Amino acid sequence: MSIELVQRLFHELEQLPLIDPHTHINPHSAASENLADIMGYHYYTELAHSAGLPQIAIEAEGISPKEKVEALVPKLEVLENTAQYQWLLEICKEFFDFQEDRITVDNWEKLYDTAGAKMAADDWEKQVLTQSKLDQVYLTNDFDDPLTGFDTSFYVPCLRTDDLVFHLTKPEVRERLCKATNRELGTVEDLQAAITDLFTHFTANQARACAISLPPDFSPAQVSANSVTSIWSRLNSGKSLPADDDVTLSQFVFWELAQNCAQFKLPFDLMIGVNRKVYEAGVFQGQDLYDKRTSLIQYKELFNSFPSVTFPISVLTHTSNQELASYAWIFPNVVANGHWWYSNTPAYIEHDCRSRLTAIPQSKYVGYYSDMYKLEFALPKFRMYRRILAKVLAEEFVIGCRWSEQRALELGKRILRGNVEEIFGT
Amino acid sequence: MSIELVQRLFHELEQLPLIDPHTHINPHSAASENLADIMGYHYYTELAHSAGLPQIAIEAEGISPKEKVEALVPKLEVLENTAQYQWLLEICKEFFDFQEDRITVDNWEKLYDTAGAKMAADDWEKQVLTQSKLDQVYLTNDFDDPLTGFDTSFYVPCLRTDDLVFHLTKPEVRERLCKATNRELGTVEDLQAAITDLFTHFTANQARACAISLPPDFSPAQVSANSVTSIWSRLNSGKSLPADDDVTLSQFVFWELAQNCAQFKLPFDLMIGVNRKVYEAGVFQGQDLYDKRTSLIQYKELFNSFPSVTFPISVLTHTSNQELASYAWIFPNVVANGHWWYSNTPAYIEHDCRSRLTAIPQSKYVGYYSDMYKLEFALPKFRMYRRILAKVLAEEFVIGCRWSEQRALELGKRILRGNVEEIFGT
Amino acid sequence: MSIELVQRLFHELEQLPLIDPHTHINPHSAASENLADIMGYHYYTELAHSAGLPQIAIEAEGISPKEKVEALVPKLEVLENTAQYQWLLEICKEFFDFQEDRITVDNWEKLYDTAGAKMAADDWEKQVLTQSKLDQVYLTNDFDDPLTGFDTSFYVPCLRTDDLVFHLTKPEVRERLCKATNRELGTVEDLQAAITDLFTHFTANQARACAISLPPDFSPAQVSANSVTSIWSRLNSGKSLPADDDVTLSQFVFWELAQNCAQFKLPFDLMIGVNRKVYEAGVFQGQDLYDKRTSLIQYKELFNSFPSVTFPISVLTHTSNQELASYAWIFPNVVANGHWWYSNTPAYIEHDCRSRLTAIPQSKYVGYYSDMYKLEFALPKFRMYRRILAKVLAEEFVIGCRWSEQRALELGKRILRGNVEEIFGT
Repeated sequence: MSIELVQRLFHELEQLPLIDPHTHINPHSAASENLADIMGYHYYTELAHSAGLPQIAIEAEGISPKEKVEALVPKLEVLENTAQYQWLLEICKEFFDFQEDRITVDNWEKLYDTAGAKMAADDWEKQVLTQSKLDQVYLTNDFDDPLTGFDTSFYVPCLRTDDLVFHLTKPEVRERLCKATNRELGTVEDLQAAITDLFTHFTANQARACAISLPPDFSPAQVSANSVTSIWSRLNSGKSLPADDDVTLSQFVFWELAQNCAQFKLPFDLMIGVNRKVYEAGVFQGQDLYDKRTSLIQYKELFNSFPSVTFPISVLTHTSNQELASYAWIFPNVVANGHWWYSNTPAYIEHDCRSRLTAIPQSKYVGYYSDMYKLEFALPKFRMYRRILAKVLAEEFVIGCRWSEQRALELGKRILRGNVEEIFGT
Repeated sequence: MSIELVQRLFHELEQLPLIDPHTHINPHSAASENLADIMGYHYYTELAHSAGLPQIAIEAEGISPKEKVEALVPKLEVLENTAQYQWLLEICKEFFDFQEDRITVDNWEKLYDTAGAKMAADDWEKQVLTQSKLDQVYLTNDFDDPLTGFDTSFYVPCLRTDDLVFHLTKPEVRERLCKATNRELGTVEDLQAAITDLFTHFTANQARACAISLPPDFSPAQVSANSVTSIWSRLNSGKSLPADDDVTLSQFVFWELAQNCAQFKLPFDLMIGVNRKVYEAGVFQGQDLYDKRTSLIQYKELFNSFPSVTFPISVLTHTSNQELASYAWIFPNVVANGHWWYSNTPAYIEHDCRSRLTAIPQSKYVGYYSDMYKLEFALPKFRMYRRILAKVLAEEFVIGCRWSEQRALELGKRILRGNVEEIFGT
Repeated sequence: MSIELVQRLFHELEQLPLIDPHTHINPHSAASENLADIMGYHYYTELAHSAGLPQIAIEAEGISPKEKVEALVPKLEVLENTAQYQWLLEICKEFFDFQEDRITVDNWEKLYDTAGAKMAADDWEKQVLTQSKLDQVYLTNDFDDPLTGFDTSFYVPCLRTDDLVFHLTKPEVRERLCKATNRELGTVEDLQAAITDLFTHFTANQARACAISLPPDFSPAQVSANSVTSIWSRLNSGKSLPADDDVTLSQFVFWELAQNCAQFKLPFDLMIGVNRKVYEAGVFQGQDLYDKRTSLIQYKELFNSFPSVTFPISVLTHTSNQELASYAWIFPNVVANGHWWYSNTPAYIEHDCRSRLTAIPQSKYVGYYSDMYKLEFALPKFRMYRRILAKVLAEEFVIGCRWSEQRALELGKRILRGNVEEIFGT
């Protein structure tokens, strides 16, 4: 395979302005303010902790941003081999004039200061967006987010629903729902109305998706309002629920969300496969893992029941990728979405991308989203993906099918951007 | 790796006449009569439907072949990236003088007509067989197929047994069995005798395998005739069965089949892992998916109980491929068979082929079967496989082990054809 | 990718003296005495048997070493494609002056005799160690091994505990434990004390790990001494246990081992995923397979409960590799260890190595161990791994990250050796 060919395709893909269809950006503080905002990303804190750095060294009460970076830097040496480290290095080179090959105890402080000076610019957010060629950034919003004070046509709201489905048994979550919808939640009908209120509020504010992450053992099922009546009363009278009732309530709320997605014509992003708090003593956001014994067959009833709802699906594990490709190949309403978290490293992306691109309609694969918390990460993460996409396009299409480079690029652009527009709307 | 080397190996593999050890060819109508016979293959209808084409557009009552093709063509654009589309394009180029890169709304009608004219030739079937270098084609026959009216030494019968194992609770299936064997089926002994009749009939007509597809949760087990007596009576008196009895009957019949395979010296093709009718509103043959949570450990008792029966095994998922390689490595009676359905795309074939070829005896891997419904598909499907096989032979053996090209080709030919002859007989 | 680059890296990696952190070497008879010691390795007997050689042909009572080799040789032809055969060929070329490409019925006898003559040298063991560049070899010792009569600073003891965890219900195992510790085992406290005695004995003899292989369905759990009191009495009075009690006892002993690992500061090697005696009629050591439906989530409680114990983990299946990489990425006490058994062939190693090296801290991946029974196997097995490691280093780091070759080699050496020293001590 010609390295030059891949380079050419990569370079062309790099020119394409992007829409990032899933992030955790806070639109009120989208860009970083100091290097700790970047190196404090859980990918670095958890890897450094996994490599032996005590949690307290990075999460102690009152630790300053600079102290946090200082604590992390010595551990970077053992992370230099990781894709995650490449993102960091690329950020430093692209945005902070860093010209060395490694971030070390000797050079980090200068880097910290340079970065700080750059980020202090009034238009830093704008600079990052321009340099990263970002046309639009999708958010992950709590259900009670007022969605005010930012440009929702650029920072596109998405209704995140984990709390509603999995934590509604907590009084504080029900309290938040009361407040957000200005409703008493005495009956199941109140609950249904409150959920619909959220969809009204979100779609009135340009929301383009409902989203949720799901544990590996969750199986959506239709549950009648009647069958949760007594569960809801029990909760409202302050009693705890037996485990099965917990699941029934989750299924009920989930199904309500799907019905609202149908009614409000919103795609329903499913991120399937994560177990929360597996490593209880881990750092912030570095505690979640999974059980690979899960299957999309668990979603059979859902996919059949909501033919009008598009389900962009992310799977946490490479071993679920073939199921995702097969279900997207058969179900019109299933779309393969990005490369998520533990599957977001090159060895998995390449195989998953290749197997999707050679088996499912090109209109049904949203190539990538950054999942970022700070804007600076879009550039290196998408670059990693574009590099892999260029390789797959070269091998499978330019060489394998004798397509012109132009034709391969058209496919690449559809995967990178066109499908985002088509599936989530603009 | 040298592209020329792969090309040379591929070219040599292309010269080899083949036996296709598993197809769904109807020997009374083996070749296509019009382009709709080809584009109506479920790979295209289901992908087009998945990409948004309503089922009714291709399956409406009374739709003509030409109308069906016309409905499908506009959706081909989004399928051009798939391996399945490559098969179609290759058929059109090889058999119908098609010289363009894409089948479009502008050129399909000419293609349709040219293809129709070619297929109208009296010797079309013969032409296809010759051009595809097919020496023998194995069939998939219903248990009540009379097996008459065709040359069973060319179109080799195989006894397909899904109906017997999984649908014997349906009166119409029992009725078919009665008729086919000319027996009353009042007792379990009658049932056993009827099954043996089928084996007698099939082997008398050159059948070379018994075959079945199995759902992911099926576990074969020995069940005594006694323990199905009451189940059988219940069925015969028109009563329905509790779910567990259903499974017991399936296990009983399956075990009977294995015993007859031993007695009649037939290989027992197992195609493991499919759930039927997962997408209920899908197009014809486009409704089946799977649950990857399955294991060959479920077949432990079977493999141990029938050491004289060869089990050529197909697995539906890439995640089962290592199990298949490992079980074929240990069990003398387990053979890795082809690359099936959702695993029959290049990214999966290459990895599965490579991992088998470098770990199990070369006598225990049947490289490929087409699974085709119409003869025209053997050529592009086997070509896809030969291209991948050439790549693996080049990388692993010519380069990796410094074998001569000749020696690598000998291995390739054994995988492609020699093992079919050895395992299924000729 | 430049083949020369890979060659250069491979050549440099070949110069590195090794510590082999997991073998089944018998230190009293470490090297082979004849070719049957090498070709009698289960990798060859099971593959030959799988390819059709009757078990009796190689395991008949009273068969001589030469007869065994003579029986195996004709079956080698169908194994020439396997990685396992490459090890054999490499041994013959490196150690026995063999210069042909194949071992055949025509040349095996000369090879047998030459090998025999070489191995008869007084310093054969030393020759093999020198040529293989082995600085240290870890053993697998029964819990009642006296650990005498060999140099424990070279042949490092490891306490293997399968018998204690899974076979303590057998009177002969309890008898061995009595003898080894010189204790009556009337109470659970006696059992606990005996286990601690073993750790005292092993660590006094330079043991560097506790190790165990585990079936796919095992889930460690903390079990109180109280809750096994009645189980233990029952056993001691000669009664058999209900299945669940069996599991409880296994969990209790396993947890005791982990506690002793904490107390004695020993890593606890977990080899996860094997089902024993799946193919009951198989050859010696050629009967074990697996159920891929297993997850590291089963070890959640263990990893959380013993933060001070390092768990070097081997997984039997490629489908578990991503879980291993992810758990090593999050848990400080989880380390990815080698490429085990059915995953120890190039197609799996390459993908598993690549996905680990690009995702987890470089300090948390022990590249390889040979698992060998005879010293001659370290060289070809490690060579296979070094070849793959060189390829991954070239592609991912020298080319992918523009590292210098020197820097990539430093990473490679850490993976091959440095981490063994750091994790197991020296």
